[in-house]
Amino acid sequence: MSLTVAGSIAFDSVRTPFGERERMLGGSAVHCSLAASFFTDVHVVGPVGSDFGDEHIAVLDGRGIDVSAIERIAGGQTFFWRGHYEYDMNVAHTDDTRLNVFGDFEPKLSNAASEADTLFLANIQPDLQRQVRAQCSAARLAALDSMNLWIETTRDSLVAAIGEVDCVLMNDAEIRELAGQPNLARAARSIMELGPRIVVAKQGEYGAALFTPSGYFALPGFPLEDVRDPTGAGDSFAGGFLGYLDGRAERDGGHLVLDDATLRRAMAHGTVLASYNVEDFGTERVSRLKRSEVESRLAELRSMTEF
Amino acid sequence: MSLTVAGSIAFDSVRTPFGERERMLGGSAVHCSLAASFFTDVHVVGPVGSDFGDEHIAVLDGRGIDVSAIERIAGGQTFFWRGHYEYDMNVAHTDDTRLNVFGDFEPKLSNAASEADTLFLANIQPDLQRQVRAQCSAARLAALDSMNLWIETTRDSLVAAIGEVDCVLMNDAEIRELAGQPNLARAARSIMELGPRIVVAKQGEYGAALFTPSGYFALPGFPLEDVRDPTGAGDSFAGGFLGYLDGRAERDGGHLVLDDATLRRAMAHGTVLASYNVEDFGTERVSRLKRSEVESRLAELRSMTEF
Repeated sequence: MSLTVAGSIAFDSVRTPFGERERMLGGSAVHCSLAASFFTDVHVVGPVGSDFGDEHIAVLDGRGIDVSAIERIAGGQTFFWRGHYEYDMNVAHTDDTRLNVFGDFEPKLSNAASEADTLFLANIQPDLQRQVRAQCSAARLAALDSMNLWIETTRDSLVAAIGEVDCVLMNDAEIRELAGQPNLARAARSIMELGPRIVVAKQGEYGAALFTPSGYFALPGFPLEDVRDPTGAGDSFAGGFLGYLDGRAERDGGHLVLDDATLRRAMAHGTVLASYNVEDFGTERVSRLKRSEVESRLAELRSMTEF
Repeated sequence: MSLTVAGSIAFDSVRTPFGERERMLGGSAVHCSLAASFFTDVHVVGPVGSDFGDEHIAVLDGRGIDVSAIERIAGGQTFFWRGHYEYDMNVAHTDDTRLNVFGDFEPKLSNAASEADTLFLANIQPDLQRQVRAQCSAARLAALDSMNLWIETTRDSLVAAIGEVDCVLMNDAEIRELAGQPNLARAARSIMELGPRIVVAKQGEYGAALFTPSGYFALPGFPLEDVRDPTGAGDSFAGGFLGYLDGRAERDGGHLVLDDATLRRAMAHGTVLASYNVEDFGTERVSRLKRSEVESRLAELRSMTEF
């Protein structure tokens, strides 16, 4: 069992009320892979430029992530994002985005990456997501994320991509926008009519909600008094969620269980990884996270939601 | 044991994407009292005008609520609110507010109302809240709600009123505004430094969070595919929450328990009553609600938050 994560590998320059960083390691595939690496074997797929150094590879490699499917484009520049947050850190303000090597990216997966049982198509152009999906035909659980840009500019491709996955993980506002339906429960049902049997609505600090054919589940965000940088929280959630499901299947002898009870535990793992992600800039907190800290926060989360 | 609820008794004219009503029974004290009436004895306190008819009294009386502390102002007009909601029903748009008899209201509580063990000061001018609080000196659990208007115009009075209660129930945005602190956990702690030992942050469709000296708890909103009118949801939450606590103390021989486990169950009762409130216009749904429906939705809520 292993998880392939395809998405952006990036340099992020971020300013929040609590500090700033220039060109730190980031990107959806990076945040997701690091989070998932606590639970299962991970292959990370995406392009980088000549400016991507060994010290950046080492952050992924140090967590045991398979970096052989990272494609290095000679002479190219790594995807770059500059943004900032005001005191309301639910809203990211983008100041600059440079696709760089992502502009001409044509995914070519390694054998190991293409044979993974679980696949996450992080938020990239939906035709690219479909190309990766086609190369991972063995995946028994495929999930995707997307964003308002693709809903508004490449809607047909996005709908086709959604029809080819089992699970959608998106922000609740984007689920409503995609469905053209302000009621979240109805919007999630209409996404399910496109194909997926699992819809996860990410709700920022409010937590996340899970919709399946048989039920509904919701978890609050883990309450934190110190949030330094929310960048990557949603991808860390996806990494904890999918990494837990894949790792659990590994322990079960390859039997991938997607019943409601298991999906709920996966939601809790996603919530915990997202909560650590935001405690420091970029990948800094999750890079130094210990498995014992994951377990202790899972226990805390359980105790603060029981009644 | 009984609960006194002081606040507005109103006529509301409301339009939502799902219909409209002219001059229906509403107001914070009405919504709260109806919700609480499922769990304990309720006294409702507030002024009405000559236009307030027996049929409106009958809605409250029909749920066993003590209406003897409703003050009828001869020749006066009942408080009136006109508003509408777009498809995003988290946001109320106010089109008209007429204080009418509320403009000169001087609370004079009946003996029964002033001797209540539990008191809810619904969202009214904070000096009025303090007058009611002073008349209910026997209350062992006093709670209040407020709004941005009072934070911005009568902040000192509001802070004084908060210092005289045990529990604050407010929208999360207003807790942040009052505390001048965007982090909700920190904002709740700073409200507790004003006096209250219980802070409930109402979060609309996202649910509600509970802060106490010893812990944190959060519940998602009950997911509904059909929301017709959100007016009064927060007051129904407060009624379920405080009504449960007071009713439970009644069953315990007058022993008012405010430990975290009991407060969590109170949060669940508030969530259920709020969810029924929004299923139809004004008081229509809660007026015809059955206790068995409360119990069945409590069980559903529990099952959709366990992991």
